[in-house]
Amino acid sequence: MAVLVQKFGGTSVADPDRIGEVASHVARCRKRGDDVVLVVSAMGKETDELLRLAGDVSARRPGREMDMLITAGERKAISLVSMALNGLGVPAECYTGSQAGFVTDVNHSNAKIIEVRPERIRAALSAGVVPVVAGAQGVSLEQNVTFLGRGGSDTTAVALAKALDADACELYTDVSGVFTTDPRVVPEARRMHRITFDEMLEMTAAGCPKPAMRSVEYAHRHHVPLHVRSAFTWEPGTWVTEEDPEMEAALIRAVVSDDTEAKVTVAGVPDRPGIAGSLFRRLADADVNVDMIVQNVSVGGVTDISFTVPDGQLETAMEICGSERAAMDAAGVSSDVDIAKVSVVGAGMKSNPGVAAMMFETLAANDINIEMISTSAIRISAVVPRGDADRAVQVLHEVYELADTTF
Amino acid sequence: MAVLVQKFGGTSVADPDRIGEVASHVARCRKRGDDVVLVVSAMGKETDELLRLAGDVSARRPGREMDMLITAGERKAISLVSMALNGLGVPAECYTGSQAGFVTDVNHSNAKIIEVRPERIRAALSAGVVPVVAGAQGVSLEQNVTFLGRGGSDTTAVALAKALDADACELYTDVSGVFTTDPRVVPEARRMHRITFDEMLEMTAAGCPKPAMRSVEYAHRHHVPLHVRSAFTWEPGTWVTEEDPEMEAALIRAVVSDDTEAKVTVAGVPDRPGIAGSLFRRLADADVNVDMIVQNVSVGGVTDISFTVPDGQLETAMEICGSERAAMDAAGVSSDVDIAKVSVVGAGMKSNPGVAAMMFETLAANDINIEMISTSAIRISAVVPRGDADRAVQVLHEVYELADTTF
Repeated sequence: MAVLVQKFGGTSVADPDRIGEVASHVARCRKRGDDVVLVVSAMGKETDELLRLAGDVSARRPGREMDMLITAGERKAISLVSMALNGLGVPAECYTGSQAGFVTDVNHSNAKIIEVRPERIRAALSAGVVPVVAGAQGVSLEQNVTFLGRGGSDTTAVALAKALDADACELYTDVSGVFTTDPRVVPEARRMHRITFDEMLEMTAAGCPKPAMRSVEYAHRHHVPLHVRSAFTWEPGTWVTEEDPEMEAALIRAVVSDDTEAKVTVAGVPDRPGIAGSLFRRLADADVNVDMIVQNVSVGGVTDISFTVPDGQLETAMEICGSERAAMDAAGVSSDVDIAKVSVVGAGMKSNPGVAAMMFETLAANDINIEMISTSAIRISAVVPRGDADRAVQVLHEVYELADTTF
Repeated sequence: MAVLVQKFGGTSVADPDRIGEVASHVARCRKRGDDVVLVVSAMGKETDELLRLAGDVSARRPGREMDMLITAGERKAISLVSMALNGLGVPAECYTGSQAGFVTDVNHSNAKIIEVRPERIRAALSAGVVPVVAGAQGVSLEQNVTFLGRGGSDTTAVALAKALDADACELYTDVSGVFTTDPRVVPEARRMHRITFDEMLEMTAAGCPKPAMRSVEYAHRHHVPLHVRSAFTWEPGTWVTEEDPEMEAALIRAVVSDDTEAKVTVAGVPDRPGIAGSLFRRLADADVNVDMIVQNVSVGGVTDISFTVPDGQLETAMEICGSERAAMDAAGVSSDVDIAKVSVVGAGMKSNPGVAAMMFETLAANDINIEMISTSAIRISAVVPRGDADRAVQVLHEVYELADTTF
């Protein structure tokens, strides 16, 4: 008998039929003898609708009031899921983030968990009741409602699994697991059985949309095994766990692409200490999420600095670079939205120096130009023209034989 | 400078435009120098939609889970109203029933207020902030969310006005006050400037839909002056207050009709002690809301017992009467849905014995048959054929000259 925390995202509980499917699945798990704790997101597109409504009502939307609004969506979902379970004869009770013991800081709309005090959840489990917990919410020490941010339900589930010392945290979603690459781009893409936390984090950072990075970090730090799986087919999905000796054979696990970033280049910057620091400090202060940063060795005392930012933050980034240009003595500032980042990820590349060469050769052989490169111990990313991104993913998926490996 | 608790019903905050109107009104009140506390219901038909959703999800809907669901509607409304106020530069903060200090019993979906601890609301007022409180909700001593029932926002507003020692409780609604009768039936119907709590309660019991009876009782008991007024025209409405010497002149204040009840008659009941008691105990146990009860003097040792129940509870009532008939030795049980209750209400009738006679004569002169009569100190009700109800209201409104009096 295992204790499982099962998280269901918005598409998994989008309407009464889907809620019924989820309740039936939980009833099956209970029959099998497992103890189940549910974490539920708002139904379907409800969070988006609430945000739109707030935009219609006021241009001024204090974080405290926004969090009260957004968290209403999950309350609705948990009560309905709990009723559906009761309707199947499974005793269930719903709990808000506050009732489930999620104490957070007061950073509204993006609150961090300070502590989980799951006394009521434990009591419910002991009483044979399925607790249905609202995802992505908590309460501050000042007794105000807080929202953990989009994707925060994954974090709620992982934190609750840790607090309850659960055997696993299952993240049910509308995809059936983690794939070697996007199956829409490469039909041969394969669902992986297992992947390490480090690889999952690199994939997430490289553009893989699910699960939310914060929850993977939390699970990694607290050693909570994750199981990413489908709420539609109910088949087993992908386990995200600690590194495993048998995994070492794998050179590359996955190819990930991200076409939501733009490139900024500050050209002809004199090679003086402190120049880059001052620029990136100003970008950080303006909440611009700088991703890749590349600086070439200086030639003749001047260098080029390139970096990528989300498309939506390009305007802000360009304004800051423009106003810093004179102070930096830079020759010019340019940008390019027509790019994509293609990454290969795999824990096995750590001990294999040929991976990068193979990637660059493959792209070159296919006439795909590389504009920027950055690497970590288990990832290599190349910025390529946006129009070549899908082709880059396809040829890399093939050359590393990702469709054929079987773990 | 007054402290006003202002309650806004669902139609008053039905969409972003209406929420904007409410915020503008509050801004005007503040400018005038008043301190304002808002109590807000769920937007438009949201509560009905949540109930429908629950019906679609499960046939089993525990009260605790239902209350979590329903109260999500008010949370959405308060956060949006608070944002709209902030958008106009009026500092505002929203509070759930729990945060506002509403401690209730655990009678889910119809919880009673045990205590109001409005510390946070007082602190907000002191800080110059407009508190926006969720109507009809609270928290039980077991820390579960509770719902006070439909129309419970009026009760929240009155209880908060009492707890804050406010100068008045304003109930903003989609009608402009309390009328001498339904203006749809009698175009000459007049909005009253003032009415006593006793009269208002009798009118509510006689079928006047707003304000909710429970809130009027609460206001009466705690001496909170009520002001029933329009959230659409913003003009002054009707004050509901303690009895006032100048009101004594008024014989009859209003005519109210109710066509949502059916009549049940148990005929030929032997006149033995305990018979009626046993019948009405069984009806009460089945949650049938018996309204008027009339028992004639017995003739030849047998009597007829007639009573009215809401249309929707007639079937249950008839089943119980059917199964009790043998035990009661009754001759038969019959029902009639084709009835309406027409009532005249007025504190002045206490010292005027001619009111009843005038009512019966007027109905007789207009060929309207009276099937049942019941009276209180300040109300006379007659059950008439449903098809004659509007005409009864019109002739009574005219004979008591309600269009002409001016208070």
